[in-house]
Amino acid sequence: MIHLDRTGDVFTLTMDAGENRWNTTFVRNLAEALDEVEASTGPAALVTLSANEKFFSNGLDLAWVADPDAYPEAGDRVAFGEEFMALMGRIITFPMPTIAAINGHAFGAGFMSALCHDVRFMRADRGFVCANEMQLGMRIPNPELALFRHKLPMNVYFETVQLARRWAGPDALQAGIVQAITPLEELREAAIARATELAPLAANRDNYGGQKEALFGKNAVLNGPHGPAHMLKNAADFH
Amino acid sequence: MIHLDRTGDVFTLTMDAGENRWNTTFVRNLAEALDEVEASTGPAALVTLSANEKFFSNGLDLAWVADPDAYPEAGDRVAFGEEFMALMGRIITFPMPTIAAINGHAFGAGFMSALCHDVRFMRADRGFVCANEMQLGMRIPNPELALFRHKLPMNVYFETVQLARRWAGPDALQAGIVQAITPLEELREAAIARATELAPLAANRDNYGGQKEALFGKNAVLNGPHGPAHMLKNAADFH
Amino acid sequence: MIHLDRTGDVFTLTMDAGENRWNTTFVRNLAEALDEVEASTGPAALVTLSANEKFFSNGLDLAWVADPDAYPEAGDRVAFGEEFMALMGRIITFPMPTIAAINGHAFGAGFMSALCHDVRFMRADRGFVCANEMQLGMRIPNPELALFRHKLPMNVYFETVQLARRWAGPDALQAGIVQAITPLEELREAAIARATELAPLAANRDNYGGQKEALFGKNAVLNGPHGPAHMLKNAADFH
Repeated sequence: MIHLDRTGDVFTLTMDAGENRWNTTFVRNLAEALDEVEASTGPAALVTLSANEKFFSNGLDLAWVADPDAYPEAGDRVAFGEEFMALMGRIITFPMPTIAAINGHAFGAGFMSALCHDVRFMRADRGFVCANEMQLGMRIPNPELALFRHKLPMNVYFETVQLARRWAGPDALQAGIVQAITPLEELREAAIARATELAPLAANRDNYGGQKEALFGKNAVLNGPHGPAHMLKNAADFH
Repeated sequence: MIHLDRTGDVFTLTMDAGENRWNTTFVRNLAEALDEVEASTGPAALVTLSANEKFFSNGLDLAWVADPDAYPEAGDRVAFGEEFMALMGRIITFPMPTIAAINGHAFGAGFMSALCHDVRFMRADRGFVCANEMQLGMRIPNPELALFRHKLPMNVYFETVQLARRWAGPDALQAGIVQAITPLEELREAAIARATELAPLAANRDNYGGQKEALFGKNAVLNGPHGPAHMLKNAADFH
Repeated sequence: MIHLDRTGDVFTLTMDAGENRWNTTFVRNLAEALDEVEASTGPAALVTLSANEKFFSNGLDLAWVADPDAYPEAGDRVAFGEEFMALMGRIITFPMPTIAAINGHAFGAGFMSALCHDVRFMRADRGFVCANEMQLGMRIPNPELALFRHKLPMNVYFETVQLARRWAGPDALQAGIVQAITPLEELREAAIARATELAPLAANRDNYGGQKEALFGKNAVLNGPHGPAHMLKNAADFH
């Protein structure tokens, strides 16, 4: 379901569960792979891939959500919401550089997981990233809104969460959603090459992860009531 | 002053008051038209147009502001500020997709009204959108600053509110202020076509409007003291 | 160390201290020049330049930081942190338009100082702006994070502070970090020409500086717990 490999300083985590839809078993398998990655020391970076040619991750495991008893291998339905969200919170503050190599569609929870990475590379010619809750007549939960809000420019954020825009690679690059696009056959190597460049940033994991916590965690500096002029003028109060 | 038409799922609201300057009578006429739109049910979208070839809306009715007694037809001067701002707050959370078709200059309050829509289409060859308060030696009120802040990338927001930049169509597109530009003769149809695409999002009005309230309303999730990592890790507390 | 000139409405402040590294003496000299600029009245704008062909400002004076006693001319080491941060807070709210003409590398504190200006022009062919703390294994202090957060689109902000990206001129322009790029030999004149255009905004200094305080100061409107819909609907409460 999840394959983990390491070459030099780069871990590659390959999601290999068909459309890579999210259920509790998938969450827990992925979390265990992250445990192994996090147990390493020194320079490192993580590249998340999909084994599927068409889908990076196609969102929640809807069949299971609709009828959990029919899919016992998908795991504890009750535990899912909290564990999935917590996993996303873990990825966004993961103490090393993280790259999602988006080789195909990334919808809903799949898009969230890609956005929680530090960098996104995307296949240029096919595939969409999309948060399609509005189209489905569903509200986006506040923590997911907060995630999109902290990763995207305001105009892109709005089109994404309110208008459920499907972003293809070139538009996603232009909008700042992904940082590079490549042909499919070059995607994996390009992501690994970038991960290799970034791996030295993880030499001090507390530092790299700690700053992500300052960006995205409790009482995130970004959301304080004071602007930078006040903080700069009273820097001693804002360590 | 305000013409309202409906074709299929798309309402077109045409502002037809010369330069479409804002006074209390204009606010109230527009609000009545919105009442009619909002009384509809099912899929729908709103396109706001101007009957004027040169101006989308040229800002406040300054002649009236300077000498209200000389223009009694413009309405109650005292009531204006609060009613205008409340109308803008209503549009930004309107429970269906909204598109402003900016066919010419949109200055000050006219720019605000366009920004309160979900999508902006703009004439490519002429016309500017501009918040010109700084040029006039006036401060932009905080609610207007908050509006610009929530709709635009930070660098664009700053150029707009602090440097009073006049944005022409191509630059406004590049900056994320508008989402498409077209020749004037295609603007109306392009906006209606996009509105037709988006209208299904309004099938569930509570959902579509409710999420806009989460984005832009009281205790907006965007402005909470916590970042997404904390919210994701404690999702049960942030419904 | 700091040369100040005035031509018409435009002050030019030239940093002339080699790599223009920041120590207490440099901070105080620059602050004194700003005192002179601020004592003027009427329309005005400030252009900050470097006398060095290769560096705009290369960051902290690290040799001095490592061994203050060896460089007594660099000034009071203990006072530095607070005075430097306060100077940045002063520049970001300076009551006239400010332009940084970035002719070469602007690293760390040098990048901060450029970002505190209202507008940035950058040499097109050479030089990087970069916040390299992560590469050095250091955390970026919260007030500095807040500064970057308020000046850049979210995706650009993240690449800058977390991935320590080195931005060359064309990429910095595309990203919204700088507002124009020019050949080196045209940079000074282009910045002065833009400053001349913007100088009238300083006719009312309280207004121009006061709004910057609203954008960037204590209880900055941007960071309040309420979104624009709530503020617009209750505008009387948010003067």
